[in-house]
Amino acid sequence: MILHSSLGPNPRLVRMFLAEKGLAEGRDFQRKHYDIITGENRQDASYIAKNPLGAMPTLELGDGTCLTESWPICEYLEERFPNPNLIGTSAEEDAEVRKWCRLIDQEIVVPMTMGFRATGGRPMFEPRMRVLSEAAGAEMMDYANASWLWLDKALGDKAHVAAGRMTLACLMVYCFANFGFTVGWTLPDGANNIARFLDAHKDRPSAGIWTQSE
Amino acid sequence: MILHSSLGPNPRLVRMFLAEKGLAEGRDFQRKHYDIITGENRQDASYIAKNPLGAMPTLELGDGTCLTESWPICEYLEERFPNPNLIGTSAEEDAEVRKWCRLIDQEIVVPMTMGFRATGGRPMFEPRMRVLSEAAGAEMMDYANASWLWLDKALGDKAHVAAGRMTLACLMVYCFANFGFTVGWTLPDGANNIARFLDAHKDRPSAGIWTQSE
Repeated sequence: MILHSSLGPNPRLVRMFLAEKGLAEGRDFQRKHYDIITGENRQDASYIAKNPLGAMPTLELGDGTCLTESWPICEYLEERFPNPNLIGTSAEEDAEVRKWCRLIDQEIVVPMTMGFRATGGRPMFEPRMRVLSEAAGAEMMDYANASWLWLDKALGDKAHVAAGRMTLACLMVYCFANFGFTVGWTLPDGANNIARFLDAHKDRPSAGIWTQSE
Repeated sequence: MILHSSLGPNPRLVRMFLAEKGLAEGRDFQRKHYDIITGENRQDASYIAKNPLGAMPTLELGDGTCLTESWPICEYLEERFPNPNLIGTSAEEDAEVRKWCRLIDQEIVVPMTMGFRATGGRPMFEPRMRVLSEAAGAEMMDYANASWLWLDKALGDKAHVAAGRMTLACLMVYCFANFGFTVGWTLPDGANNIARFLDAHKDRPSAGIWTQSE
């Protein structure tokens, strides 16, 4: 397998998922890094052939099949490499973990991504894709922040988002919050449970194998 | 199982998924209908106990476990009732179908839902949840419409969205477009492949067992 990877929360999610599975670069997969600041991922014709949207990451399989979209790539890895389990050990637990993944995706990931691209990330993204107006982008960031506070309340004093252990849902929270920090975002006031959660997991090996930008 | 169900694209998605699985109301599951126009789902304490967000639908299992969020509920049904297959028959095919589901979710479902709640749906939703400004809502509808045109191009002359057959990805497209039609939305000019797709599937048994509002 070849992981086509870059800066950004979605590539990091897949890198952390691979690391949590015990899959090692060089031994279990190769990694090709792209500089998305300069737009390498949108100019490299061989990459566009693998991922027509030019988005990151892409997991290229041995037969050349290219998988895209971070969450579905993680589901693929879960099916291929079931241990340690990171999504669920029963249909009911799968449903719980995926419920949180979808809520995080719809209520935080999408508004935060659309908001960032239209505000702080505007100089980089506006030439590349359609972005909202700055005013609508600011509303999306506010919406995402309200969702962070809702997630904070749902997390409460628990150590994990779902299923009482580290799952894909935890990794999504970890990657999107920490990416936010690198682009000037801060947790909304009062999100103390999320702050504690992020601190508790900051020394996980999977968080440290690669830097955020790799 | 009891399906807690109502008007809306997400409940309809689960109803269609159940029907495509050959699961019948009365025989395989019970169905409880809620009037979301009057906000029954947000006032009924017994429902809030099952789904704290008050959102629709919820699938209540025999042991009282309550599953929420339409896509994860469909994944649960796929695991419990594997035939006919509606998500994938291999890890690679699962990844393809889920890729389309996630793209549709992020690029169409979320902006269309947030946009509708802030514009045409504002009188109903503003008293119940946080909604964007009307201006931002209109931008979200424009964003969703651009995504519909992108999906139209990706669909091309194919009969199905993914995997060359009816899957969850097709059902998502079908339910969200047809719900849109009931609230005054129309396909953007040029989405002729989507129009053909919707027409080709309008007589599927699963589309007709229940009306949109059930």
